[in-house]
Amino acid sequence: MTIKRGRFITVEGGEGAGKSSNLAFIRDLLEQSGIEVVFTREPGGTALGEDIRDLLLGHKHTGMASDTELLLMFAARAEHLARLIMPALNEGKWVLCDRFTDASYAYQGGGRGIDINRIKQLEDWVQKGMVPDLTLLLDLPVQTGLDRAGQRSEPDRFEVEQNAFFERVRATYLQLAEQNPSRFRIIDAAVPLPQVQEQIEIVVRPFIQAQSKADE
Amino acid sequence: MTIKRGRFITVEGGEGAGKSSNLAFIRDLLEQSGIEVVFTREPGGTALGEDIRDLLLGHKHTGMASDTELLLMFAARAEHLARLIMPALNEGKWVLCDRFTDASYAYQGGGRGIDINRIKQLEDWVQKGMVPDLTLLLDLPVQTGLDRAGQRSEPDRFEVEQNAFFERVRATYLQLAEQNPSRFRIIDAAVPLPQVQEQIEIVVRPFIQAQSKADE
Repeated sequence: MTIKRGRFITVEGGEGAGKSSNLAFIRDLLEQSGIEVVFTREPGGTALGEDIRDLLLGHKHTGMASDTELLLMFAARAEHLARLIMPALNEGKWVLCDRFTDASYAYQGGGRGIDINRIKQLEDWVQKGMVPDLTLLLDLPVQTGLDRAGQRSEPDRFEVEQNAFFERVRATYLQLAEQNPSRFRIIDAAVPLPQVQEQIEIVVRPFIQAQSKADE
Repeated sequence: MTIKRGRFITVEGGEGAGKSSNLAFIRDLLEQSGIEVVFTREPGGTALGEDIRDLLLGHKHTGMASDTELLLMFAARAEHLARLIMPALNEGKWVLCDRFTDASYAYQGGGRGIDINRIKQLEDWVQKGMVPDLTLLLDLPVQTGLDRAGQRSEPDRFEVEQNAFFERVRATYLQLAEQNPSRFRIIDAAVPLPQVQEQIEIVVRPFIQAQSKADE
């Protein structure tokens, strides 16, 4: 028996989009269908990746150059792919990831203004054409998200950015969704959680069914 | 009065090549000529770069992927260029650096076997054509160097590699010198220190004179 390659699902979204609750919900949906799920996040996902995450999100290196930030993101990603994502997929497991390369385009490209072509070069360098099978974008107005996020813990090095930064992040995410319609699904995350989850089910259940069919 | 851009000198060499003593000697030569020198090293040179250096040279992440290692090297380098090297050169200071991109070719390319073209892509991405004005390669047979280095402190994550690894590192350095004759000078570092320093003086003094002339 040959093992069918697993599927790679990513969840993207700005501040306060409810990623944590909705990731847990997606994980449950997958596991209820008998799928073995590896749940992970970016930046991070490996021991080294988490150390890099600390450099990126902590306040110790606030003035880091944009190029440095982007290279660190992709260093963590290279480790994540080599040590966790690709091995899991090759063993037939599905990988559910809290943020991936789309976030580099949104935050470093849209937010920080790094040339999109320079991000594309690193994406090609690291991923060699590998992209997620499905990306759920939890979209909501920036202010709604910030109001929600503000009620939580201490802000990290990205969360202290200004509204205009997050508007550019959101616009870039929506642009990515438009440019990659086959893998992106936009979820309206401004509505109450049960209605967000309803939208997610409408996307994820048929995706599971279609993939099971493809693997038969 | 316009400030003349400083010069960027790098020193490369394998284990036990005597980089520390010879870097101090070069620094003295420059300062004796009235040149303001910024002395730095790679990986590292900035607060963030030194944190990245710890990830790279420590034993905590021994199994890191080659791609990750290379991206971390270039992340530290991007920060080094943006925060220290370029600002110093633009202020007219000279920068003397213990290892630079040639080391990525030698260690990650030659040593680890990463495709040279992939290193070149990151070099172009980060440096946008910026290269050292002068590179001194302290060359010596691998076993001689390892014997010398072995008498010192605990080996780091690179120093525990095998002889074949260091043979590839040396061969790559010599190849780089051959391919870039205008900036590389090979110093025979196998001979006693006074004779090494004699060779260094023969290279560095005329370089200083030529640069002073060019700045007049």
